[in-house]
Amino acid sequence: MRFLIVRTQGVHIKCTIDSQSDASLGESVALLTRESPVRILGEVVENESVKLGGLEIHATELSILTLADPILPIDLASPTTSGVDARMDWRFVDLRRPESRLIFEIQTEAEWAMRSFWRDEGFLEIHTPKLMATASESGAELFGIDYFGGQAYLAQSPQFYKQMAMASGFERVFEIAPVFRADPSFTSRHDTEFTSVDVEISWIDSHDDVMRLQERWLGHVLAHLHHTFAKRVSDTFGVDIIVPALPFPRIPMADAIDICSSRGHVNEREGDLDPAGEREMFAYVQETYGHEFVFITDYPFSVRPFYHMGHPDGEKHTKSFDLLWKGLEVTTGAQREHRLPILEQQAIAKGLNPEHIRFYLDFFKYGCPSHGGFGFGLTRKLMVLLGLPAVRESTFLTRTPNRLSP
Amino acid sequence: MRFLIVRTQGVHIKCTIDSQSDASLGESVALLTRESPVRILGEVVENESVKLGGLEIHATELSILTLADPILPIDLASPTTSGVDARMDWRFVDLRRPESRLIFEIQTEAEWAMRSFWRDEGFLEIHTPKLMATASESGAELFGIDYFGGQAYLAQSPQFYKQMAMASGFERVFEIAPVFRADPSFTSRHDTEFTSVDVEISWIDSHDDVMRLQERWLGHVLAHLHHTFAKRVSDTFGVDIIVPALPFPRIPMADAIDICSSRGHVNEREGDLDPAGEREMFAYVQETYGHEFVFITDYPFSVRPFYHMGHPDGEKHTKSFDLLWKGLEVTTGAQREHRLPILEQQAIAKGLNPEHIRFYLDFFKYGCPSHGGFGFGLTRKLMVLLGLPAVRESTFLTRTPNRLSP
Repeated sequence: MRFLIVRTQGVHIKCTIDSQSDASLGESVALLTRESPVRILGEVVENESVKLGGLEIHATELSILTLADPILPIDLASPTTSGVDARMDWRFVDLRRPESRLIFEIQTEAEWAMRSFWRDEGFLEIHTPKLMATASESGAELFGIDYFGGQAYLAQSPQFYKQMAMASGFERVFEIAPVFRADPSFTSRHDTEFTSVDVEISWIDSHDDVMRLQERWLGHVLAHLHHTFAKRVSDTFGVDIIVPALPFPRIPMADAIDICSSRGHVNEREGDLDPAGEREMFAYVQETYGHEFVFITDYPFSVRPFYHMGHPDGEKHTKSFDLLWKGLEVTTGAQREHRLPILEQQAIAKGLNPEHIRFYLDFFKYGCPSHGGFGFGLTRKLMVLLGLPAVRESTFLTRTPNRLSP
Repeated sequence: MRFLIVRTQGVHIKCTIDSQSDASLGESVALLTRESPVRILGEVVENESVKLGGLEIHATELSILTLADPILPIDLASPTTSGVDARMDWRFVDLRRPESRLIFEIQTEAEWAMRSFWRDEGFLEIHTPKLMATASESGAELFGIDYFGGQAYLAQSPQFYKQMAMASGFERVFEIAPVFRADPSFTSRHDTEFTSVDVEISWIDSHDDVMRLQERWLGHVLAHLHHTFAKRVSDTFGVDIIVPALPFPRIPMADAIDICSSRGHVNEREGDLDPAGEREMFAYVQETYGHEFVFITDYPFSVRPFYHMGHPDGEKHTKSFDLLWKGLEVTTGAQREHRLPILEQQAIAKGLNPEHIRFYLDFFKYGCPSHGGFGFGLTRKLMVLLGLPAVRESTFLTRTPNRLSP
């Protein structure tokens, strides 16, 4: 009798082979190397003494589809000994680990839950172009492309185009698509390419309408993930999927800085929270509200892009927010300025030449309802949800300044 | 009494305003320009004499969010008079036409139906990188990117990476994402960027398993679209959404050329159908099977990429297919060669240097099950379904060699 452990869809199953009574079966097994794909015909038998789910297969036929090289490039049983770089070099082997696969099962269901929410609420799905003639945001961190002898750029976000959908009367839209950032920094939270989840809605009164949408939407998604994966996530990653209470706490930026100060943290960024300040706010909302999420609202215009709408109070604060989850920023959102003369002034105030973004300003020339929205990094969301050490773990194939392969 | 026609979510509604009894209401209406976004408070009243759905709104309040420029850049009531270029220049206005909006409602539901099928059958959703160090297919029609002083390319398809998912044991995957083709040709069917629907499955015996998946999947999607949109599509575009009978007809390439010949069409492409031949095959399958779809199968290796699996018959035919819908190619699919030595030989036979695609060949080194899949252009599908004259009509914002804006 010989034993194999076979893996299918992230599950390990014990397989028993009587190589004595069937010589050809014995020959096949003798050839086998680890990680080779096999087709097995046999009887599935309950066996309480088997640790792997209490089932085993009594094989009667076994065919080898291809033989794996006997020396594997990374150690699947002990990934940390292989090191991060080796795992990323051989990502396709690394993804065979059941815990890697589970991340993508969760991603699939998370996107499904997002879409079911949007569909119930009448959103349209859009696919905006990633090839652009001009910068979508600041002009920094842009990848340039040779476009038939001219110059094009890769979209850093669908920002301008999801707003265009509002000018087209689409009213409520979403997009899940890649975005590109030529960011030379190396951190565990940044990629040069990642999957962005974008939402934009019309006819809002303020950024609070956007926050109310986002918290309902996140609550829906997390309830679905909790229902589907709570035990497996707890067993695999040692974290609980918590379904958040609504509404999420909201704290204006100015108050957040005061709260940080009162807790002994001197914030090092003008008008914005530094990473330590974000963690401090997490500690504060956990203690005060027992919550993982907090909306930081009403950022000063100085730290926001030109298209965020200002408050009418003349104090140069914007109708904007960030969402922090477990102390990490996962979203920037805002009401957008839809009144063309003010929008153009704000662009000039930020040092932009309106002629360089005329195509965008034109969106507001022929009538555009009030609107706002938010963006959300899909892999960052999964990283925070599952307590992963870096976004590369929740990314199918990570892209960084020095990694374009495989 | 004054009358307005207001539009919301593609629906026109008549609005009656008593500007005599309410002076401020009268003033607002006097200011209004066409296409301006307004908020109206009023009573919705049934009125059988109203053509627009038998409803009208008796407005009591009206506020103008922004005023549209009184001279619109295109004629929304008569789009053909404005011409295609003007409509694409002012696409955000063009998309306000209810028939434009309907296309994106259909797209949203089509993707929903696709995903519901995949989810029921245990597929994982993947997001493969669009930034690559090497060509994903032939090396032609590639967009190059300056990548931190080095060279990167935009993915022409997720081909290599969806196969990688098979080497990772993901077994069944899909992706809906942009692909990029630096194709300098101008036709009504080609864009430099479009949304590709990609599927890959493991443990297949031949390309027929892939075709059987695709026809079930398409049947599911078209049944959903028929159920949801049949009347509106018929009223708006004058075409019927036909739920196809399964299985679709399958005709080997060699037979297709004979059929074309027997019908008097001399095919001008060696081993492949020319566009007139594709239309001839449509006429043939309509007459013979009463079907809109036909799989053309078993293309010669000479016209297929190196990774398509050959038949074991030594006749240099591949386990591949194209799907024609109403005489237009909408899919290429195949079983892939998963045996590394043969795959490497085939790459060499196509003039490729294996070292240039070593990262891809490595996917097959540590065991990979048999697998196959197909790709599908989302906008082209919508174009064929709705009988649109060009893919730009089913694309949110089209990209061609001379169009990068808006």
